[in-house]
Amino acid sequence: MKEHKSLERLIIYRLLLENEYQDGMRHIFSHQIAEKTGNSAAQIRRDLMQVKVNGNAKNGYEIKELIDAIKAISEPKNGISFVVVGAGNLGRAILNYFSKLFPQFIAIACFDIDPEKINHMICGVYCYPLDQFSKVVSTKTVQIGIIAVPPQGAQVVATEMANSGIKGIVNFSSTPIKAPKDVFIENMDIRIIFEKAAYFARNSKNAKKRMKQSEISNG
Amino acid sequence: MKEHKSLERLIIYRLLLENEYQDGMRHIFSHQIAEKTGNSAAQIRRDLMQVKVNGNAKNGYEIKELIDAIKAISEPKNGISFVVVGAGNLGRAILNYFSKLFPQFIAIACFDIDPEKINHMICGVYCYPLDQFSKVVSTKTVQIGIIAVPPQGAQVVATEMANSGIKGIVNFSSTPIKAPKDVFIENMDIRIIFEKAAYFARNSKNAKKRMKQSEISNG
Repeated sequence: MKEHKSLERLIIYRLLLENEYQDGMRHIFSHQIAEKTGNSAAQIRRDLMQVKVNGNAKNGYEIKELIDAIKAISEPKNGISFVVVGAGNLGRAILNYFSKLFPQFIAIACFDIDPEKINHMICGVYCYPLDQFSKVVSTKTVQIGIIAVPPQGAQVVATEMANSGIKGIVNFSSTPIKAPKDVFIENMDIRIIFEKAAYFARNSKNAKKRMKQSEISNG
Repeated sequence: MKEHKSLERLIIYRLLLENEYQDGMRHIFSHQIAEKTGNSAAQIRRDLMQVKVNGNAKNGYEIKELIDAIKAISEPKNGISFVVVGAGNLGRAILNYFSKLFPQFIAIACFDIDPEKINHMICGVYCYPLDQFSKVVSTKTVQIGIIAVPPQGAQVVATEMANSGIKGIVNFSSTPIKAPKDVFIENMDIRIIFEKAAYFARNSKNAKKRMKQSEISNG
């Protein structure tokens, strides 16, 4: 599978299906997945053909079978190992998030330049000085590198990651980064999400009414 | 504009164009935007028609004009006001991120249930007890609500936000939430991003080689 969006949709289906399975559902139709994910039923059937699971007209797809088939693609057996550069609030939030909730994501180490953080345990992993990045990573199995530093430091970190052989980077800094073509970069710019949410909030009729009332009570 | 993806693409174009403008570029062709964002040139021309800016065959689009036209849709003049529920690492990371880098996003307040956080200033905003959410929000102009609590608390917070008249919610908890139809919900599940990055990292030829070497040196 080469298309980014297609893999992303499959992972979203899987998270949805895991919830439905937990709630006791055992079978699902493509139009039901469509309704809950905002994709067309035809799109969903095309995506699911990639994981080679077929539904039938009577019951639809078997949920457990779908989950397993998508997992076989998206989730390696030994988990997903990652390092975080930047042990500030964001870096720590990421380390906490995964260690508490999703043990299949394995934090290997974090890196910082702050002497108060270096050589301490932070959210369960050892914090190394950033200038030892390449050395530390070369002795471990690291699948993805997370950039959680301020924008001015992001490119230096990305280059260091690429030079150390990391092929997947998630960039939480608010600036675009460059890397060689064989390195996959996912830019997570929270601004996009915030602006989108604010746009649809503003354009909800009730929201407009509420905002006006609120402006009056503020002023 | 009703389509979520179309707005999201426009915001992504704008962030790209702002970078190009800073780098000294003044004009751009749709195929150049296409190359840098991974959309087709035809898609980009369709999206840009929505903001009523026309390019010409000689120079393409004027970058400044495009930025302003997209801003007029995506960025309200008075900024985007938000509250954060959950003043843990993630909540604080969000507050810091915007207050330091993007003053057009205005943090109004945060909320928590931890007595050590309540009634203190956290990353520049006052932290109120969660049970005063509705009361506090009713006296202020709040465009979006950010959920940065553990999964088991997410739905309660979402319901409280919807009941308080908030029409845009960004959900950082790793569990889906429900709200009335006039409330826009954006679920930010970092797992999807991590799994995608790991998939493409695994399927890079060089990555495979490196992983094997690393496994040998680990074992």
